[in-house]
Amino acid sequence: MLSLFHSRLFSTSPCRLYHYTFRVTGNSFGTFKSLHAKRMATVAQPEWKLPTSKVEEPVLKVYNSLTRTKTEFVAANGRHVKWYNCGPTVYDASHMGHARNYVTQDILRRILSDYFGYDVHFVMNITDIDDKIILRARQTHLVEQFKTSQTALTPELIAIVTDSWTSYVYSKVSKGLSETDKLAQGQEWSAWQTLQGKFGSDDKTWKQENLRRDEKFEMHFSAANKAYTALQNAWSGLEQGRTSQEEAQALVEESRDILALTLDAKDGHTITDPTIFRSLSSYWEQQFFNDMRRLRVLDPDTLTRVTEYVPEIVDFVQGIVKNGYGYEVDGSVYFDTRTFDKNPHHDYAKLEPWSKGNNELLAEGEGALSVGSGRRSPADFALWKASKPGEPSWDSPWGPGRPGWHIECSVMASAVFGENMDIHSGGVDLAFPHHDNEMAQSEAYHECGRWVNYFLHTGHLHIEGLKMSKSLKNFITIDEILQRYTARQMRLAFLTQLWNAKIDFSESLMTGEVKNLEATLNNFFRTAKALIRQHQSEGPRNETKHRYGDAEKELTEPFHQAQSAFRTALCDSFNTPAALDVIRDVVSRTNVYINSRSINTNLDVTVVERIAKWVGGMLRMFGLGEGESSEIGWGQVISEGEGNNVNREDTLMPYLRSLSSFRDGVRKVAIDAAKGGEKGDEALKEILALCDRLRDVDLVPLGVALDDQEDGRALVKLLSPAELIKARDEKKAQEQAKIARKAAAAEAERQKKLAKLEKGRVAPRDLFKPPNVPEGAYGSWNVDGLPLTDGEGKELSKNAVKKVTKEWQTQKKAHEEFLAWQKEQAQS
Amino acid sequence: MLSLFHSRLFSTSPCRLYHYTFRVTGNSFGTFKSLHAKRMATVAQPEWKLPTSKVEEPVLKVYNSLTRTKTEFVAANGRHVKWYNCGPTVYDASHMGHARNYVTQDILRRILSDYFGYDVHFVMNITDIDDKIILRARQTHLVEQFKTSQTALTPELIAIVTDSWTSYVYSKVSKGLSETDKLAQGQEWSAWQTLQGKFGSDDKTWKQENLRRDEKFEMHFSAANKAYTALQNAWSGLEQGRTSQEEAQALVEESRDILALTLDAKDGHTITDPTIFRSLSSYWEQQFFNDMRRLRVLDPDTLTRVTEYVPEIVDFVQGIVKNGYGYEVDGSVYFDTRTFDKNPHHDYAKLEPWSKGNNELLAEGEGALSVGSGRRSPADFALWKASKPGEPSWDSPWGPGRPGWHIECSVMASAVFGENMDIHSGGVDLAFPHHDNEMAQSEAYHECGRWVNYFLHTGHLHIEGLKMSKSLKNFITIDEILQRYTARQMRLAFLTQLWNAKIDFSESLMTGEVKNLEATLNNFFRTAKALIRQHQSEGPRNETKHRYGDAEKELTEPFHQAQSAFRTALCDSFNTPAALDVIRDVVSRTNVYINSRSINTNLDVTVVERIAKWVGGMLRMFGLGEGESSEIGWGQVISEGEGNNVNREDTLMPYLRSLSSFRDGVRKVAIDAAKGGEKGDEALKEILALCDRLRDVDLVPLGVALDDQEDGRALVKLLSPAELIKARDEKKAQEQAKIARKAAAAEAERQKKLAKLEKGRVAPRDLFKPPNVPEGAYGSWNVDGLPLTDGEGKELSKNAVKKVTKEWQTQKKAHEEFLAWQKEQAQS
Repeated sequence: MLSLFHSRLFSTSPCRLYHYTFRVTGNSFGTFKSLHAKRMATVAQPEWKLPTSKVEEPVLKVYNSLTRTKTEFVAANGRHVKWYNCGPTVYDASHMGHARNYVTQDILRRILSDYFGYDVHFVMNITDIDDKIILRARQTHLVEQFKTSQTALTPELIAIVTDSWTSYVYSKVSKGLSETDKLAQGQEWSAWQTLQGKFGSDDKTWKQENLRRDEKFEMHFSAANKAYTALQNAWSGLEQGRTSQEEAQALVEESRDILALTLDAKDGHTITDPTIFRSLSSYWEQQFFNDMRRLRVLDPDTLTRVTEYVPEIVDFVQGIVKNGYGYEVDGSVYFDTRTFDKNPHHDYAKLEPWSKGNNELLAEGEGALSVGSGRRSPADFALWKASKPGEPSWDSPWGPGRPGWHIECSVMASAVFGENMDIHSGGVDLAFPHHDNEMAQSEAYHECGRWVNYFLHTGHLHIEGLKMSKSLKNFITIDEILQRYTARQMRLAFLTQLWNAKIDFSESLMTGEVKNLEATLNNFFRTAKALIRQHQSEGPRNETKHRYGDAEKELTEPFHQAQSAFRTALCDSFNTPAALDVIRDVVSRTNVYINSRSINTNLDVTVVERIAKWVGGMLRMFGLGEGESSEIGWGQVISEGEGNNVNREDTLMPYLRSLSSFRDGVRKVAIDAAKGGEKGDEALKEILALCDRLRDVDLVPLGVALDDQEDGRALVKLLSPAELIKARDEKKAQEQAKIARKAAAAEAERQKKLAKLEKGRVAPRDLFKPPNVPEGAYGSWNVDGLPLTDGEGKELSKNAVKKVTKEWQTQKKAHEEFLAWQKEQAQS
Repeated sequence: MLSLFHSRLFSTSPCRLYHYTFRVTGNSFGTFKSLHAKRMATVAQPEWKLPTSKVEEPVLKVYNSLTRTKTEFVAANGRHVKWYNCGPTVYDASHMGHARNYVTQDILRRILSDYFGYDVHFVMNITDIDDKIILRARQTHLVEQFKTSQTALTPELIAIVTDSWTSYVYSKVSKGLSETDKLAQGQEWSAWQTLQGKFGSDDKTWKQENLRRDEKFEMHFSAANKAYTALQNAWSGLEQGRTSQEEAQALVEESRDILALTLDAKDGHTITDPTIFRSLSSYWEQQFFNDMRRLRVLDPDTLTRVTEYVPEIVDFVQGIVKNGYGYEVDGSVYFDTRTFDKNPHHDYAKLEPWSKGNNELLAEGEGALSVGSGRRSPADFALWKASKPGEPSWDSPWGPGRPGWHIECSVMASAVFGENMDIHSGGVDLAFPHHDNEMAQSEAYHECGRWVNYFLHTGHLHIEGLKMSKSLKNFITIDEILQRYTARQMRLAFLTQLWNAKIDFSESLMTGEVKNLEATLNNFFRTAKALIRQHQSEGPRNETKHRYGDAEKELTEPFHQAQSAFRTALCDSFNTPAALDVIRDVVSRTNVYINSRSINTNLDVTVVERIAKWVGGMLRMFGLGEGESSEIGWGQVISEGEGNNVNREDTLMPYLRSLSSFRDGVRKVAIDAAKGGEKGDEALKEILALCDRLRDVDLVPLGVALDDQEDGRALVKLLSPAELIKARDEKKAQEQAKIARKAAAAEAERQKKLAKLEKGRVAPRDLFKPPNVPEGAYGSWNVDGLPLTDGEGKELSKNAVKKVTKEWQTQKKAHEEFLAWQKEQAQS
């Protein structure tokens, strides 16, 4: 039975809005008593209605290269996200381009998992089979071999290098030279000198003209020029008889780049040892991950290496052939782009359909070690390359060969994810042909319509407005940049820009916006920490009024809005510059609040603490943080001395106490023994010197102060090293000043004494004779030189006699002292 | 212009499903060419369709006390959540009940913000105006004052205590006693002795019967009994003349509980100093937060104290009166429940409408210091209480008074949040009347229909199956429990139970499930770390086949499912036991995988690492973690030695190197000097002993090993202290064993020597006489005792003479040695 109750249903808008409705509910009486509804309702809870949110929540949208628009992000499997990121080809040091790409992907990955709460499976490959690796490994090996085999500088060696130089100049440098500059056969040497002049001049037009014709002109010219100079040296060395092994090897070393090409052309095919290729890629892979960890880029969840997936690649290529999209020619297998594109179920080049005919891009994708001809279309690309001698190879149904570049990602991503993934990411220059070919291959193999749901491409990186390139001399490795900026500064720089836009990495960006922002945040955290510390150290106050008043609400309300705005920014395709603006604004408002209040009377420290915690939390979420996540701020490395003092103290103090009390003991023994007298020997003095050295030299840069106390037990303090060094140096300076003052006083004393002694230089018997007195002052003297008469022959008065006698006696004493000192000086 | 293209729209289900559709798109030709659609499409990207998720995502539901069901959680302002949590009344030490409540709320708070990504504003109050605080502060103050004023044990003092005792027994203990046990006037003393016997006996029935009548029986009986024993002692002390101040104060101390009531009844009204109340609450507030921090409960974002919100409370009460829901009687203001409930826009007691008439609960809510009569209904409760003398008071329009209990939360939550909040939480015993009255007040003041959207009530806590209470002697403070279990174990215990269910905290739960789970997780992290470390230390391997094979997929797939299941569990009203089960299952599967593989040949450590990171991350999210969030595991405090070795090493090593090299220097000087001979004095020996002490005693418990090397520079190692202590003790034991072996060998040698000496005890002249030879062996001897004839008088043969002479000479030498030793012994 049912009974109908008069009940109420409150709207979720909280106030002064009442809705009435009837509610059907069971009751034990089983009768219809609407009149008594109110009384009955007292034994049941009133109806409750689901609230509706007053604000519309933003949904996450991402800039998707497959649409070139921001599209809503929907993961195919709930919160689980399959994400494949294109990893590096490992044959050289990682540079700023890598930093931009991988740090940016790391930021997106962290936002998706740590902010939006997705369970991300992040897979990345390492390309360790590639034409660039083969060439670099083979050439390095051949040049090293050639260099080691040289025992003396000979005309033959010089001839080999000269041939290499000539061929390099014609094949590489020539491309950039205008018709007038091109070197005439047989006159290369003198012509080169002319070019050197132009190259070295301040006139940039010539160089730019050449760079326009060939963007690698500068790099090639430099390589050739280095070899040219080395050849000049070698010739004059030979003439002067400097023909040692060192001279020979120096020539090879300086001509490395030009020799690599000719040696490889001649002997490249002889390289058969696979470890030559493998050790190069494994070395650079390790360097890559070292660099990434220094940049605080998280390791991928799953790492796939091409060399470890060759059997799967062979199977995959077979599958494509079986499905009718691949064909073999002379041991190589190609993808049939036309057949694929003609199929109504497929599209070739989904990302950049307009690039389909771009032969330059296609050729670059195929690699430098071109495989044979015979493709059905110039747009067809290699799935499997027949290996020529000197190239690593694996067995396959088509004979010995190796994977093409694009196939590896298709195979490895499929091996981990199957036939569909949510996100594929990589640098924007990989979009065509690499990613388009990847998709074509995979959709051909799986016979599916969509292999990748979202393609996220990181934008380009420029340096001071120019594309980074070795020829432009603005090529910066990660190792180099990390000597100039911290990983945090680098990441901040990338965060200030949109992930998919071109970033211009410039000195002014770093020293301006980035360092300013960093300083603003550091200052904010420092202030917040100081306020919290002061608040805590004061203990409970007896306040009669709370501090959460209007000013605090006026700070809290925009803070809550900022939290929403931050979310909105990240939902807007991970708009980190906007998110940083939100943080900047929150910090600035909080600073204004802090400055307007007094901690003793009306500052509510809990409001500041809450905001500081949130700001720190968001910065850590971006990967900018270090240290314990519970502390205020974004952490600081312990060796930097500042911040984090409490933990540092807790950790170190037991050890420092041990150290200090050991020193106390040693000192006490040494001092007591020294007091005892007979035991005060050299060893104990040395030990005391060691004790002082520990205090003044060793511990100071570690931020440890030992203050020796009267009772023999030093006070141990943990301070900032900088502070301590300053204090020590000031103390030292003061001591030195004191010593200097003492020395000056001693010197003054010596001078005074000297002056006094100097007065005694005159023998008493000469004291009253010229030139010590004016000519004619006295007339006659006794044997001791005491005057008897004045200049006019008159006998001296009694008083005058008394006076000269006294002077004479004083001089006698002074003269004796003078003689003694003179004697002493002569002896020493 | 528009043109219609034939294009394709792939479904989000990845494969072998093709949908066709027409797409309208702009093109530069502006003509209708459907026949050439395919060719045209090559310059535009193919259409892309938003994926749909294959799995339905769970939505967060919470058990809402307002419906007593799990309802979907919708925050009223997007991701911003207004959450008010009922804080403690601070007048005593926090106990297990507090731990359960606040740790559990902390877990929910962390899940909501750190897992579900809400921006939570968490507000909590401190009740520092309350009848319990007033009574506790006043009584403590009066007892202390009374105690201090006693100078000697007098019959008068004993009489006062006896009166208190009698009145206590009648008013408090009597309730629990059966009619037959009740004390007859004038016979209290002897009757009490009978009760003591029953109370102390093993028969539990009597005690349980009394507890049934009065649940506080045991507590009251114990207090009275303690005073009874003290009174007996005092009487006999008085008889024996022990009447010192100490005796007097001891009596007061032991009778504290019973005196508190009589002293307060007599002098309570004289207490006027407000600091007496304030210092008690401020002390216990600090203790409360200390306990919370030890339990790793996060501080609230905003903390509100009642004493700091009195003016707002007065305004609020005025508002309620103005709206017609409050009335004043004799300086107190009451809430008019009937008027409120009659209003069709309001419901009184939304949480527990069935408790409306429960006078016992209502009275408890009103507090012990009952205010005057005159309420319109017994269900009406105090909004403002007129203060009697001895109670703290604030000015108000109704005269001096203080806030009622319920009003504070209404006012403070409204002051921070306004007229609506998302979540209100607290212990389940607060539901009625506290929370129902709070809601009624706030809805009366704001004239709104819904002040709280979700009410989350933490379940009860029992100890070993029983309600925790001081009378049951199972009352455990947080300080006590933290001496038995770690904060992590406590939190794990709460996580294994539903937050809104009754939890039975028992020894078996802790030592069984909790410690097992903790050990399982610790072992798992230890294994994972060891595998990762070994993998890293080996550097890159030259593998020809990847390790991400079937076994790894069979581990990864359920891991992804586990991540979903974990989310589903938390969406199911924060079902942490189910979430822990998911983690337990993941760990167990991973252990099975690890055991089935070999790290050298086919274990894929990255799979293990990924799972370990996720498990650690989720445990940290629950608040179980310590230390750097990037490391594997859930962290461990540095002083515990284990784990975290890398960071510990980085931090400490510079300091330890300083310490060690200082010691090296000191040792070198001392050793060199000792070698020099003349300088090897006591001081240097002492210094060497200090060096050894540092190595063997001081640094060992810190986990620092100094291995002295031949070159004088010790090797510094950072190890686990336990390991190091063990190694040192083993070394010591070996040394002692060696010494013991040496001592035993020396003793054996001594015994041997003694035996030899003993042989020389006989003087040579007695050697051939009885009892050293058989009676009658020889007949005659010369003066030296050499035998001349045999027993039969016959002269000895030449050979015989030679033999005895040799023996005699040997004995002579031995006897001389014996005599010398004897003399030596005598002297020493």
